Amino acid sequence: MKPVIAIIGGLGEMGRWFSRFFREQGYEVLIGEPGLTPTSAEVAAQAEVVVISVPLHLTEQVIAELAPAIRPEALLTDLTSLKQGPMQAMLKHFGGAVVGTHPLFGPGEASLAGQNVVLCRGRGEEWFQWLHDVLVAGGANVQITTPEEHDRLMSLVQGLTHFTLISLGTTFRRLQADIAAMETLATPTFRAVYDQVRHLVNQNFPLYAHIQLLNPQNRLTHAAFAEAVEQLRQIVASGDAAALMQILEDNQRYFEQWPNSSPVGQANPSSPSKR
Amino acid sequence: MKPVIAIIGGLGEMGRWFSRFFREQGYEVLIGEPGLTPTSAEVAAQAEVVVISVPLHLTEQVIAELAPAIRPEALLTDLTSLKQGPMQAMLKHFGGAVVGTHPLFGPGEASLAGQNVVLCRGRGEEWFQWLHDVLVAGGANVQITTPEEHDRLMSLVQGLTHFTLISLGTTFRRLQADIAAMETLATPTFRAVYDQVRHLVNQNFPLYAHIQLLNPQNRLTHAAFAEAVEQLRQIVASGDAAALMQILEDNQRYFEQWPNSSPVGQANPSSPSKR
Repeated sequence: MKPVIAIIGGLGEMGRWFSRFFREQGYEVLIGEPGLTPTSAEVAAQAEVVVISVPLHLTEQVIAELAPAIRPEALLTDLTSLKQGPMQAMLKHFGGAVVGTHPLFGPGEASLAGQNVVLCRGRGEEWFQWLHDVLVAGGANVQITTPEEHDRLMSLVQGLTHFTLISLGTTFRRLQADIAAMETLATPTFRAVYDQVRHLVNQNFPLYAHIQLLNPQNRLTHAAFAEAVEQLRQIVASGDAAALMQILEDNQRYFEQWPNSSPVGQANPSSPSKR
Repeated sequence: MKPVIAIIGGLGEMGRWFSRFFREQGYEVLIGEPGLTPTSAEVAAQAEVVVISVPLHLTEQVIAELAPAIRPEALLTDLTSLKQGPMQAMLKHFGGAVVGTHPLFGPGEASLAGQNVVLCRGRGEEWFQWLHDVLVAGGANVQITTPEEHDRLMSLVQGLTHFTLISLGTTFRRLQADIAAMETLATPTFRAVYDQVRHLVNQNFPLYAHIQLLNPQNRLTHAAFAEAVEQLRQIVASGDAAALMQILEDNQRYFEQWPNSSPVGQANPSSPSKR
């Protein structure tokens, strides 16, 4: 028999997304949401799988509050963008099966097909395998890692990418850039980056803020980026062509260690005039 | 009768691209290239249209050297990524018709269709209209602006975008980031930005270096970006959620002045899990 699934925060964007997904896979899904009845604890108590899908900065608190209501034989999992804190909270407050989940996409996606989803083993191999198989059946690329490795890599993948896009948005604002005029002179490379700047300014601010604030690894990452920016700024300001060429060559040599799996190839439009 | 076109630097990537383009449009194209015979001056002297397509940092020097050989009734134009310096050089050293051109794309493009091309008026309306019409016939979106406005906007469109992508590449290198592991945990937003980092590390280094070095506007732009980065770094390091939310809100309000012409819409995959 298929387990009953409770999604706590089930009216949020990702909560609704996963409610639809599980229902399409034939599961009964119960929704818990703060302020509604039945309460989240009542909903959690009725389920064999409890999925925490509340705002990142509230996740650990909600886990601590709900854990006593969850059946001992149930699976407790979350959909949070960081994994160390939520996993520790789930393992500490709940004695049963625990898996950490991070869907690496947003609620604008039509389906799970081809999307990356991270799973971290907590406790209980059977439930881990069940969740893994449900996601794979939905077409996900399931990536298994540890909470530590996840958060370390996410500091580069999400933390630094968002940090950069926010900084670009701030720069355009501070310089009172004429966005419409810039768009008329867009290159393909600018368009690719600018589209992401623009996309991010309309996203879920608390989530994006806490992806920055709650990952301790970000301090090291941000410091390295700020140093790279300041060094490059000084090199350009002083007109040091040799130092600039050296950076370009060092970066090229670094990336040559990995074959380019990017879809961007020879026919990519992303370069300016070449001479 | 169709004018004969000389492309100086015609064996470079963009030179070859435009040789092919003009030939496809039915023009006779002569190629001048340093070290080959006939010399660039001899080639230029035979043409009614002379297109300078040499490396950015050599453009003004080549213009000064070739100008005396160009027929007084000819059109002199260039394909350079900056417009103030090359336009001044063309107008100073040559007494005939002058137009500044900047194709806002790279040689990987199959055709001119849908690409942005900047034209700046120099001297001579008839030749300006001729070049404009040839580009429009090829499918280009021709954008007419002044050299000053072009370079000011390009400091944001190309200068800052490349500066950011180079800084990201340097950061990955300095942190000895495991690129393969990062790719397995890629989000759509990361992928979009990372693809451009990766694309840039394999491009024409002298061009990219001189796009940074030769645009005086870049100093102001880079300083504003470095300041935004350093401020955001400090805000995150100190855990100041209110200040971070304020930046996100200020940026959103700034961009709201312009309708979003971006193809990135609701169904865009570029956001992480939303809760």
